[in-house]
Amino acid sequence: MNKQTITDWFKELQDEICKGLEDLDGKSSFKEDNWQRPEGGGGRTRVIDDGNLIEKGGVNFSAVSGPTPKKILEALNLPETDFYATGVSIVLHPQNPWVPIIHMNVRYFEMGNGTYWFGGGIDLTPHYVHGKEDGVTIHSILKAACDQIDPEYYARFKSWADDYFFIRHRNETRGIGGIFFDRINEQSEGKSKEDLWQFVQSVGKSFVPIYSDYAQKHRSRSFNEGNKKWQFLRRGRYAEFNLVWDKGTKFGLDTNGRTESILMSLPPQCSWEYDHQPTAGSLEAETLNWLKKDIDWI
Amino acid sequence: MNKQTITDWFKELQDEICKGLEDLDGKSSFKEDNWQRPEGGGGRTRVIDDGNLIEKGGVNFSAVSGPTPKKILEALNLPETDFYATGVSIVLHPQNPWVPIIHMNVRYFEMGNGTYWFGGGIDLTPHYVHGKEDGVTIHSILKAACDQIDPEYYARFKSWADDYFFIRHRNETRGIGGIFFDRINEQSEGKSKEDLWQFVQSVGKSFVPIYSDYAQKHRSRSFNEGNKKWQFLRRGRYAEFNLVWDKGTKFGLDTNGRTESILMSLPPQCSWEYDHQPTAGSLEAETLNWLKKDIDWI
Repeated sequence: MNKQTITDWFKELQDEICKGLEDLDGKSSFKEDNWQRPEGGGGRTRVIDDGNLIEKGGVNFSAVSGPTPKKILEALNLPETDFYATGVSIVLHPQNPWVPIIHMNVRYFEMGNGTYWFGGGIDLTPHYVHGKEDGVTIHSILKAACDQIDPEYYARFKSWADDYFFIRHRNETRGIGGIFFDRINEQSEGKSKEDLWQFVQSVGKSFVPIYSDYAQKHRSRSFNEGNKKWQFLRRGRYAEFNLVWDKGTKFGLDTNGRTESILMSLPPQCSWEYDHQPTAGSLEAETLNWLKKDIDWI
Repeated sequence: MNKQTITDWFKELQDEICKGLEDLDGKSSFKEDNWQRPEGGGGRTRVIDDGNLIEKGGVNFSAVSGPTPKKILEALNLPETDFYATGVSIVLHPQNPWVPIIHMNVRYFEMGNGTYWFGGGIDLTPHYVHGKEDGVTIHSILKAACDQIDPEYYARFKSWADDYFFIRHRNETRGIGGIFFDRINEQSEGKSKEDLWQFVQSVGKSFVPIYSDYAQKHRSRSFNEGNKKWQFLRRGRYAEFNLVWDKGTKFGLDTNGRTESILMSLPPQCSWEYDHQPTAGSLEAETLNWLKKDIDWI
């Protein structure tokens, strides 16, 4: 398998996921923007809004190339060389506050000198967390994908997600986690590129089953104004994480990436209130107790 | 004048501004949170919401001290030493989309080795800009404050504001600017500390007159749903600037500052829409044409 095979597979994954989400939504469909990057490559940004299930979301594919951005060369202490990067990125903000926000990214990076790596992850941000039962589906499905390649991967990548999707200035996790991994390759893992690619494909394929489960379970649950208000506040935290801490977002904005594609992750509507404190004993207060690292959700 | 004189004056400025804003608002009053910083010092955070004029705003005073944060020592290449920093920070989000968002900051910084500097600025972010007339009040009042100390300050600090309050990933200014200055002292300016302090005081004193003028001019203008929608989108850009580019916010979050005081600048409610494009010829489209550097507003 080479970069073209990987690229083609990611494109198909985008198609499949969009199809799966349109079926699930039942009302809205994706609109596509094809864009070119002046320095090389481009992408297919697909966004959906005002659906039955999804209020605003994006499923983006890109394959970009050209001279490696200076920031990467400096970080890795490398001489000038070309790069090729391809992947699929997703963020979905649901209408119903009982349905979680979800994020997925799978990516492949290759440089002129032969260096390559895979990265990716899926994580879930429910507006409400009741208990460990809320983490079972996502963590079980991701654990199964990890176990196929290495019995130690789930623990390692789950913990990596806890550390990565962490809102440091709030001392809280973005949600209930999932898995995250970056810059894995033959050298770092002692596994063949083919095996790692199989793993990345398993992660990509697990997106629709995971999201469908949460969506179907919660989409018909009735909610009130207080639930919407809480959803808007939690979306504010999501925006804080993405704009302040997310390395992918930061890198994209720093290196003159396509702003509208990068910021498709931001919520349709959100709010901030000074020092908001949920009522003691409320579901909102309970939720905050679950936004911690190192919870064993399975 | 010493750090205590400056601190006391900033406290009084906070009192005066809060009083002025309560009079102007006519409905809501400020709520105060006194906080202590574990490493030294503390602050008086004052927030207002749900007013006649102001939907959400903060007027914060702080005076913090202790070992200089490593980030500053590294940036300035200094040995370990104590610091003292005091200032007043304001952001106001109005109810009415015809009234602009306003920001002010005045600050003083001193280190154990005797180094000191002043910084500050005021800038205006109207949701709608019709033309140069919208910039006359703020820029004329700030120019007058600058001219008192140096005929070249307005041009220099106006241009500094254009560069600072710039949303790089959007290639647009945050609003119609104002002035911004940082790390000015005897060495950098060839002026006495007393003269520079007088200047900083003039800037602080100009806040209420500037905001009152814009508030009174526009607060009674009727608006529709489309205007509110546009206000929410513009507030989204304000959040993007503050969370992605604002050095003060970044520094505060990086150095374990008081999150709720730092993020009081965020809007009460805002929204993001993928690739929103205002209708050609609309007031919204006209506004975007004015969000550029180097416009002579006077």
